[in-house]
Amino acid sequence: MNVVTLAGGIGGARFLRGLRATVDPRSSTITVIGNTGDDLTLHGLRVCPDLDTVMYTLGGGIDEERGWGRADETWQVKEELAAYGVEPAWFGLGDRDVATHLVRTRMLDAGYPLSAVTEALCVRWSPGVRLLPMSDDRVETHVLVDLPEGRRAIHFQEWWIKHGARLPAAGFVPVGAEDATPAPGVLAAIAAADVILVAPSNPVVSIGVILAVPGIRDAIRSAAAPVVGLSPIVGGAPVRGMADACLAAIGVDSSAAAVGQHYGARAGGGGGGGLLDGWLVHDGDADTTVPEVRVLAVPLLMTDPAAAAAMARAALDLAADLSR
Amino acid sequence: MNVVTLAGGIGGARFLRGLRATVDPRSSTITVIGNTGDDLTLHGLRVCPDLDTVMYTLGGGIDEERGWGRADETWQVKEELAAYGVEPAWFGLGDRDVATHLVRTRMLDAGYPLSAVTEALCVRWSPGVRLLPMSDDRVETHVLVDLPEGRRAIHFQEWWIKHGARLPAAGFVPVGAEDATPAPGVLAAIAAADVILVAPSNPVVSIGVILAVPGIRDAIRSAAAPVVGLSPIVGGAPVRGMADACLAAIGVDSSAAAVGQHYGARAGGGGGGGLLDGWLVHDGDADTTVPEVRVLAVPLLMTDPAAAAAMARAALDLAADLSR
Repeated sequence: MNVVTLAGGIGGARFLRGLRATVDPRSSTITVIGNTGDDLTLHGLRVCPDLDTVMYTLGGGIDEERGWGRADETWQVKEELAAYGVEPAWFGLGDRDVATHLVRTRMLDAGYPLSAVTEALCVRWSPGVRLLPMSDDRVETHVLVDLPEGRRAIHFQEWWIKHGARLPAAGFVPVGAEDATPAPGVLAAIAAADVILVAPSNPVVSIGVILAVPGIRDAIRSAAAPVVGLSPIVGGAPVRGMADACLAAIGVDSSAAAVGQHYGARAGGGGGGGLLDGWLVHDGDADTTVPEVRVLAVPLLMTDPAAAAAMARAALDLAADLSR
Repeated sequence: MNVVTLAGGIGGARFLRGLRATVDPRSSTITVIGNTGDDLTLHGLRVCPDLDTVMYTLGGGIDEERGWGRADETWQVKEELAAYGVEPAWFGLGDRDVATHLVRTRMLDAGYPLSAVTEALCVRWSPGVRLLPMSDDRVETHVLVDLPEGRRAIHFQEWWIKHGARLPAAGFVPVGAEDATPAPGVLAAIAAADVILVAPSNPVVSIGVILAVPGIRDAIRSAAAPVVGLSPIVGGAPVRGMADACLAAIGVDSSAAAVGQHYGARAGGGGGGGLLDGWLVHDGDADTTVPEVRVLAVPLLMTDPAAAAAMARAALDLAADLSR
């Protein structure tokens, strides 16, 4: 069984850990199409927060408490950069993490595409999945914010981390996406998939940005495999992160139903461009209808790896049902 | 009083600390012309070992025990690079140190010359001297070694640190020196100097490489100021480091007299190209004659900062004598 999953950072990574525990590695492959719209360059270092979170989480190197960055991390480089007066204090650049970025930056500078770099980094981490960036081309999510001096576009990380997503966002622009092409292997993996999953990641700046790469949405829509998504919204609020601020900016309610409708049904001639055949919502959420999508309620709180595995199991079961 | 000093790494830095303690900062300036032939690029980071050693030592950030690198250093980045399989284990790249290299590399990539970068880094460290690289151009000291498979040129750091200077060296080549020009301020500082000192640094790969930059030797030879050197050889052996291995490669004995003769006298029509008016050798060293150079014996062991200050005092006193 070939499982393809679209995923962002922390939530996606934890879901993937559950998925990996659920499928039999002898007969199954997991391909992850990861968001790179959050990537940034700090002090000349290329940082890929979502890819790293997936890699560290599945490789056993993640700081479980924070959900991002390395376990047993230290912060000497960051403190020293601050002493030189050049540190963007709002970004967490740990010492162990810096080594990853050094290797990545060196390989990128040498001309390797991000997909090859990611594969090389994963040799160390053995994540048990094939981790693909959505694109080898640079796509950078900018946030349109309305400031007293007018509308400005700032880097997603600046909005998300420095401003804690509190600056009212008027929209998101995946700069570069229109000219990007899917990374090698992405379209082939989708075409060969037996199941396509949309992880409970941020629908706007993680999944939405992946889908903004021309060709990926169409490939999913025309894939033979059933497509099942998991709601990142539980009880009207994001399980973690600040997806509600992102959804508000694009006029989507913070509810499982609204996100499901935003993704839309693959079937029928309805809105066109829809993705989903199945949609998992949290047990007990009210009003979860998504037209022409099979909605199923299961527990969607990843309180521990076992809970994440049960969610993955439910998603695969729903996909199997849809395949019949 | 304007004091100009040619200096390498650890020995030069400790001498400079003594010099700084000796001169009155209200009426004197100290300009350091530092060796950059040992510089190397590791993981895309530009490392300037000698400049950093001077900067850290005078800025109070040095690890006193090792003599190089930062106090309270940690090694997470290095360990992680090793885990990725890309670490040259022989080079000590500490976490705090990495921040310096990140800032330097970023500024160099942005187009700033090394002299401007060094000045910017020194804003933090306030070394109390004006630290100039010998050149903004890249000069890289290579070592010619005779291996079973033939003569090979390897980077100085590889010979010095990886091989502990144990591979027999057939010579040293300051690659790029012939096309290098002195960094901004170097020639002007020499011309305006009241005293020129040659620190007790490695005569071959530190002082020798500085002098290999066209224009610097001539400027010193034609300067109005007296030139006083300090022997790095005490009792027939280098005080620290492996200068004897370097001297042997160029056919110079490891003695204070031989090094003094290698530098040569500025006066007279003797060998031509000589540098020295005065030469400090260690108290008790026998046979220290250098033709046409005023040789004075004083204690030359920098056992503590006070001893280094006394050496600097002796050098300045000898220069004053020579000026009369």
